[in-house]
Amino acid sequence: MKTIKIGLLGLGNIGTGTYKVLDMNRGQIETATGTRVVISQILEKDVTAKRDIDVNPKDFTQNPDDIFNNPEIDIVVELLGGIEPATTFMLSAMKNKKHVVTANKAALAANFDKLKKCAEENNVMLKFEASVGGGIPIINAITSVLQGNKFEEVMGIVNGTTNYILTQMTDFGLEYDDVLKVAQEKGSAEADPTDDVEGIDVANKLTVLMALMFGKYVKPGDIPTEGISKITKEQIEEAKAQGCKIKLIANAKNVDGKIEYSVKPMRLKNDHPLCGVNNEFNAVFVRGNAVGDLMFYGKGAGPLPTGSAVIGDVIEIARAINQ
Amino acid sequence: MKTIKIGLLGLGNIGTGTYKVLDMNRGQIETATGTRVVISQILEKDVTAKRDIDVNPKDFTQNPDDIFNNPEIDIVVELLGGIEPATTFMLSAMKNKKHVVTANKAALAANFDKLKKCAEENNVMLKFEASVGGGIPIINAITSVLQGNKFEEVMGIVNGTTNYILTQMTDFGLEYDDVLKVAQEKGSAEADPTDDVEGIDVANKLTVLMALMFGKYVKPGDIPTEGISKITKEQIEEAKAQGCKIKLIANAKNVDGKIEYSVKPMRLKNDHPLCGVNNEFNAVFVRGNAVGDLMFYGKGAGPLPTGSAVIGDVIEIARAINQ
Repeated sequence: MKTIKIGLLGLGNIGTGTYKVLDMNRGQIETATGTRVVISQILEKDVTAKRDIDVNPKDFTQNPDDIFNNPEIDIVVELLGGIEPATTFMLSAMKNKKHVVTANKAALAANFDKLKKCAEENNVMLKFEASVGGGIPIINAITSVLQGNKFEEVMGIVNGTTNYILTQMTDFGLEYDDVLKVAQEKGSAEADPTDDVEGIDVANKLTVLMALMFGKYVKPGDIPTEGISKITKEQIEEAKAQGCKIKLIANAKNVDGKIEYSVKPMRLKNDHPLCGVNNEFNAVFVRGNAVGDLMFYGKGAGPLPTGSAVIGDVIEIARAINQ
Repeated sequence: MKTIKIGLLGLGNIGTGTYKVLDMNRGQIETATGTRVVISQILEKDVTAKRDIDVNPKDFTQNPDDIFNNPEIDIVVELLGGIEPATTFMLSAMKNKKHVVTANKAALAANFDKLKKCAEENNVMLKFEASVGGGIPIINAITSVLQGNKFEEVMGIVNGTTNYILTQMTDFGLEYDDVLKVAQEKGSAEADPTDDVEGIDVANKLTVLMALMFGKYVKPGDIPTEGISKITKEQIEEAKAQGCKIKLIANAKNVDGKIEYSVKPMRLKNDHPLCGVNNEFNAVFVRGNAVGDLMFYGKGAGPLPTGSAVIGDVIEIARAINQ
């Protein structure tokens, strides 16, 4: 049985989740790919953190070139987050003929065309299922079996922190600040929540979705973006009285050949499929000209769901290598 | 640009839908596959039916061997329905080194292992996205990007006719017989609705899902199966009073290593993701040990949604051929 070797960049929450998924489902993954998949080198400064996984200390390196220049490594999995040095590392990996898997929406959104072009030029695969919707297999669907459609619209609830806050405000009649504070104490919102609550993370994901669905690259900074930090209890009550919920929506649609797009809180009627998507759950609603309305629902974050998506990409690459 | 040629078996509703999807999204499909995809031969007795598509009369044949022996044909798309002669035709096609795409859950459920084995022996692809959930890309998801999971449970609303009947009974307090009659008049239920209302169609789909998710083949006839024809208005009202809806559910779960399975009407709490799936919509709820809960929602039937799934499979095969 062939062995596929992974160089992992970053062993934080998602890296550890990915490691665990590979470990706990090893037999299943061998059957699915016909290969053995191992993480053989890890770029990570913090080698002593408690992680509840069993890493061989000699697999750690502080030098990314150790991974890029390692001829045994087939796939580089980038889980550092942030635009740099992640983008530079992915480009280096691809130039060294490594396939790349990433969960990094910020780097993808900032440098989508450059990264895609580099993958094509070096004849390697660049996969990023985990970058939008965490464990929800939306990227795979829109880039494979749904390609027989012209896409007409996408509406996504693609940020768990803001959906949690809006759900709690709606269900318990609470104020934004109070829910945010509890979410921060529980660890379901960051100490600095700006990227989430101001819609920046959602805009990154919309950039990725639009590039794939409409072949149109729009910088996240050029997407009209409004977050949820100004939503009041009163606005939510008013929506409720009209049979609606307020949700933070990444929206893009084809209007007579022109793509219109925004990230903003929207009122959705209670019978809209996205209205039942609560708390930390994510969902992406897609309309195609043949398939009609579809919705994909699941956990948009968390180490294991995100690890599931990362390993899903690894499996697809392993299968292609093994053919 | 390479041309991929399809031999189509059956130009009924789904065949016509598939033809239309290919026609209306031709440019998109060429971009997605890097190939031209054409339907070059059609097995169909009724050559004169009004179909609202533009078929060259000389593409029709009455002899399936014309297609199986045609060296130019790469993919056979089987849309005849029913176990035979569809199974025999698919086997013949694969033995003649044609890839096969089918929407036929009855043939797949009856002969899953035989068909899979034939595909392997002849080194061709056998794809069947449209066989479960119509346009919903569930088969692709569970066989590709979700393969890093051990599946724990699947619950599917995978029959539009019965979901329509139950929804109407629930929403309007109607009796089963009255809704069925209207559904038959509208064409959303068959004149002989047995396969749908007694859960036989759902059992076929569960056989396919279980084979893929748990590696366990169970004949549809061996699945404990209960339909909806005995559901009364009173049972639905009673469920409602307890905050529940009755849905016809294909269920399989891993209980301590043993797969338990059934097709039967189940009471689901109103906040269950499947409870918002109404009328002709389908949805499949999946739980994986890494990804957690996922749900896929969309149109489970109809010529264009089903055609979207068929063409999705064709695209995947065309891409693989073209590599």
